[in-house]
Amino acid sequence: MKRIAVLTTGGDAPGMNPAIRSVVRYGINQKLEVMGVFRGWWGLINEELKILNQRSVSGIIGQGGTVLKTARCSEFRTEEGQKRAYETVKKNNIDGLVAIGGNGSFSAAHEFYKKYNVPCVGIAASIDNDINGIDYTIGTDTAINTALDAIDKIRDTATSMERIFVVEVMGRESGFIALTVALAGGCEDVIIPEKELDLKAVCHDIVHGNLIGKMSWIIVLAEGAGKADDLARQITDMTGLETRTVVLGHVQRGGRPTAFSRDMALNLGKAAVDCLLAGKTDIALGMNAGRIVEVNFEVAIRKKELKVDNFYNLIKVLT
Amino acid sequence: MKRIAVLTTGGDAPGMNPAIRSVVRYGINQKLEVMGVFRGWWGLINEELKILNQRSVSGIIGQGGTVLKTARCSEFRTEEGQKRAYETVKKNNIDGLVAIGGNGSFSAAHEFYKKYNVPCVGIAASIDNDINGIDYTIGTDTAINTALDAIDKIRDTATSMERIFVVEVMGRESGFIALTVALAGGCEDVIIPEKELDLKAVCHDIVHGNLIGKMSWIIVLAEGAGKADDLARQITDMTGLETRTVVLGHVQRGGRPTAFSRDMALNLGKAAVDCLLAGKTDIALGMNAGRIVEVNFEVAIRKKELKVDNFYNLIKVLT
Amino acid sequence: MKRIAVLTTGGDAPGMNPAIRSVVRYGINQKLEVMGVFRGWWGLINEELKILNQRSVSGIIGQGGTVLKTARCSEFRTEEGQKRAYETVKKNNIDGLVAIGGNGSFSAAHEFYKKYNVPCVGIAASIDNDINGIDYTIGTDTAINTALDAIDKIRDTATSMERIFVVEVMGRESGFIALTVALAGGCEDVIIPEKELDLKAVCHDIVHGNLIGKMSWIIVLAEGAGKADDLARQITDMTGLETRTVVLGHVQRGGRPTAFSRDMALNLGKAAVDCLLAGKTDIALGMNAGRIVEVNFEVAIRKKELKVDNFYNLIKVLT
Amino acid sequence: MKRIAVLTTGGDAPGMNPAIRSVVRYGINQKLEVMGVFRGWWGLINEELKILNQRSVSGIIGQGGTVLKTARCSEFRTEEGQKRAYETVKKNNIDGLVAIGGNGSFSAAHEFYKKYNVPCVGIAASIDNDINGIDYTIGTDTAINTALDAIDKIRDTATSMERIFVVEVMGRESGFIALTVALAGGCEDVIIPEKELDLKAVCHDIVHGNLIGKMSWIIVLAEGAGKADDLARQITDMTGLETRTVVLGHVQRGGRPTAFSRDMALNLGKAAVDCLLAGKTDIALGMNAGRIVEVNFEVAIRKKELKVDNFYNLIKVLT
Repeated sequence: MKRIAVLTTGGDAPGMNPAIRSVVRYGINQKLEVMGVFRGWWGLINEELKILNQRSVSGIIGQGGTVLKTARCSEFRTEEGQKRAYETVKKNNIDGLVAIGGNGSFSAAHEFYKKYNVPCVGIAASIDNDINGIDYTIGTDTAINTALDAIDKIRDTATSMERIFVVEVMGRESGFIALTVALAGGCEDVIIPEKELDLKAVCHDIVHGNLIGKMSWIIVLAEGAGKADDLARQITDMTGLETRTVVLGHVQRGGRPTAFSRDMALNLGKAAVDCLLAGKTDIALGMNAGRIVEVNFEVAIRKKELKVDNFYNLIKVLT
Repeated sequence: MKRIAVLTTGGDAPGMNPAIRSVVRYGINQKLEVMGVFRGWWGLINEELKILNQRSVSGIIGQGGTVLKTARCSEFRTEEGQKRAYETVKKNNIDGLVAIGGNGSFSAAHEFYKKYNVPCVGIAASIDNDINGIDYTIGTDTAINTALDAIDKIRDTATSMERIFVVEVMGRESGFIALTVALAGGCEDVIIPEKELDLKAVCHDIVHGNLIGKMSWIIVLAEGAGKADDLARQITDMTGLETRTVVLGHVQRGGRPTAFSRDMALNLGKAAVDCLLAGKTDIALGMNAGRIVEVNFEVAIRKKELKVDNFYNLIKVLT
Repeated sequence: MKRIAVLTTGGDAPGMNPAIRSVVRYGINQKLEVMGVFRGWWGLINEELKILNQRSVSGIIGQGGTVLKTARCSEFRTEEGQKRAYETVKKNNIDGLVAIGGNGSFSAAHEFYKKYNVPCVGIAASIDNDINGIDYTIGTDTAINTALDAIDKIRDTATSMERIFVVEVMGRESGFIALTVALAGGCEDVIIPEKELDLKAVCHDIVHGNLIGKMSWIIVLAEGAGKADDLARQITDMTGLETRTVVLGHVQRGGRPTAFSRDMALNLGKAAVDCLLAGKTDIALGMNAGRIVEVNFEVAIRKKELKVDNFYNLIKVLT
Repeated sequence: MKRIAVLTTGGDAPGMNPAIRSVVRYGINQKLEVMGVFRGWWGLINEELKILNQRSVSGIIGQGGTVLKTARCSEFRTEEGQKRAYETVKKNNIDGLVAIGGNGSFSAAHEFYKKYNVPCVGIAASIDNDINGIDYTIGTDTAINTALDAIDKIRDTATSMERIFVVEVMGRESGFIALTVALAGGCEDVIIPEKELDLKAVCHDIVHGNLIGKMSWIIVLAEGAGKADDLARQITDMTGLETRTVVLGHVQRGGRPTAFSRDMALNLGKAAVDCLLAGKTDIALGMNAGRIVEVNFEVAIRKKELKVDNFYNLIKVLT
């Protein structure tokens, strides 16, 4: 193995940059040439890539986003797209790929590997923390702290004006961010895709709180479980109380990665290079309990089970 | 003058707490008794108030929101409401009021003063910075930095995924926050109530940028100038390019006040007590050019003119 | 078990407040009375304690420090001190103790338990992350992010002025904070108590970097491995290059706890109450790999081994 | 005027990067060529400079430090140095200079202008806010908020452990930062170069506070008024109470510029180009009361008077 390529694909996550830095610098340290592919699989299809050196990744360790840019690329799911990507691989003498991304990326990488046998190691990066077999993905910790910071601010005004807020956080299929920040923010309720909404119970708690003098309320809603405006309207209809909504949205994607997101990214970048050198492929890397774990792509892309009850019960008991 | 009361009214703004602290501690230092009224004018109408001491305001200097809580109170615009408020004033031997709030509060205070002759000094606190005759209000600097921090984060993902964002910030009647953060965030365009939207020009710039390789774009929209979703849809219709929206909303109201918001609040709190002691009334206090300024309530509540052209032109030139 | 008491002892750590909140609210939920003891063991000796209710812990979830205050208390290591503490326990009908703190606290708790048989469960809170058998303690994640934020800022000026910095971080006996932030901050070197300083190697790297154009340099020093000023002087003597120092100090103790520190604290608070109810005692609780772990006090207070080599090597390879 | 050069000199300040961005982009907009000089006057002497374009300053608006790097350069105060700098100016056809820096830079620029008649406009950038005739310099607001953030964190531990802290902030000749953060942080005392230290009064207040139950104390010390360790020792000697010290140091130089620092920098960058185009020279630009002000270099470098009494008295009254 003489030359590898690194790319970031799917939704960006804070920590992708330190992961790139680690792949590049550790790769060079291991006598590899490292190419950077721009805009994920699209860049492989369109041969947008270049050799990176030590300096190419200077100063990016603390930056959000990804200097290689990223994209969602449906073309890579087509035969034609995969063929062109493979041509780029051959033409540029790329012996292995490091794909930093989430489920969609790993699924595509798996198909590509099966067909063209190009060694590929994934690094789990996704703010949603939704990759099966992996406790924590790059970016999750940062996104959670960003959302928590926003919720702390909303708490200030919720308390001062005694208002009910529905705050929508990211998580299309996973309530992980919602549960984590609802607990950490001392929020009064949380609605997630993994648990059916019991609107009556939500409203009962609000009205009961109101009667005993608890006038402010923050309900965290995972985007996969509904729209903030809809839920707010339902609550107002049922309780007769005013509600306000906040949709945190893409703010959660950006920002300087936390220490945890960075250290994980740096460790996984090195590990991905080690795996390629050891002949491993078709696997995603993540952290479980502070240790690096290798999960077959096929397993990683399965639906991740989230144990919601402990979280949920603790949230309800502590408010 | 032996006893004064302090209250926070209207929308909360970061810095109200240090203002309260200053009124209370400086008032006590000046041998006054200081009462805190809860929930703004509502608390005066409903006699929800209590004596505050030095310790009552310990540890609040860095907290967002207001420990006295606040509310919008239409009842205080009625004869009956004003009468009940006056009864509270008399019954509790309150010789003067400090009202920390914005335009609506000052307008109400002015009416109340005209009718019942209770000395009242206002402290300009409003994240919108929309009080006439006053350069900067308590809370504006904090809100702007909160919005800027969000825009910096959105920039990370906008650049990484090469997307067009419409980011809606606060400012129902004023484009001040929008202009300030658009400039500071290096944003590509800004839409404000003070300037008619030229949708064609906005879209032309985007398409032109696209052609010369500028793929990411952040347009800041003041809430008073439209809805983010509407604008985004119009842009997509006209340009054929995908757009994303973020509505920052109430996050901008909260958070630890900045040094600027705190120091201003502490200075104005003292000044308000000094004004009452000097027999001044029916005025709002704010900062102009680092100096405390007194503005008659009647003047303060007029529409504030904002010089938008310098800002706007600089934003367009620098992107 | 009808009544328990909670206290915070030793150096404060961000996250102690959410831990208190959890003990109190979950305790009440479990039909217990919960007393708060002020200033750690000192408060037990001097009978400074009071009944806490739901409201006593409102609004503290996001606050640094500890509302119960804390202290180091050598008197509790004496027979007389322990006797008086026990009298407080008896007099107030306290059936169990939750001690939130670090090694010193657990050592004291263990002695007290052995002598007076008062059930006691510890919650591992210490920014140094130095408790044996426990991967992560409350406060560590916050302290690390605070230190990293400072190092990012120092990087700005180090790069702009091309200077060599020695930055001293906390860690009297453990290099954990130093290693973590040195990695996450992209720092050029790290000096820790666990590894003998090779001054020549440090200086060689600096001079070599200098020759190939790398002019700025940040060396992280754990306080347990020396003084920043001393190291800086030695480096200047050996290399002839100017150096600057920063001692981050107590800033690292404060600040709003991160999501990770809060969620851990809330989980451990509940777990501590559950342990007392289940008749467990003489143990410290912490998190390993996302799961709550119980460690005998006797084990917890032993010297914790830190695997430094992976960290250290990665830091050196990546700069 | 066809070509100008921009440089940053002296100590770096957050906001230098947006100032560079503005000079470059507005200069190009005005049909000028803009060169960037590296490492301040040193780069002019050693001909380290290059043409900058729009893209050269992409993405730097929110970054601390300066991408042009900066240095203190005693050689530029010599005849030989100035001569060589002038040769660079001639050889590169530079028609005007924009020098972003502080007092030392302006003093050097003034001498250079007098001797060689190269038009030069300064932009006031200095965290110390010590430039005469100018209310606020670029970087001050950011440095103050950084120091305040640290003090808020120290407050957490000071309150929890009931300790006395001496916190040393920047300000070699000016107490501006110290006064501002002491007020905003609710600190109990402040020691500045402009006011003689009355150690007995400081200690009296501490002991008196101690007697009435106020156990924690933060004293802010401007570096120009003494060393934290010395002051702490003196306090301990006189009061018999333990003290702790924190020296914030270079952390205050770095970090993302605040909205205020950025907007000021962007406005001043444009104004500097306008001044050069209008034939103005030998002046420094800053902001007074929200308006751009031009101050002759000779005036700007005089000792700035700071009105300390209002600040100081307010600090003492409010604690």
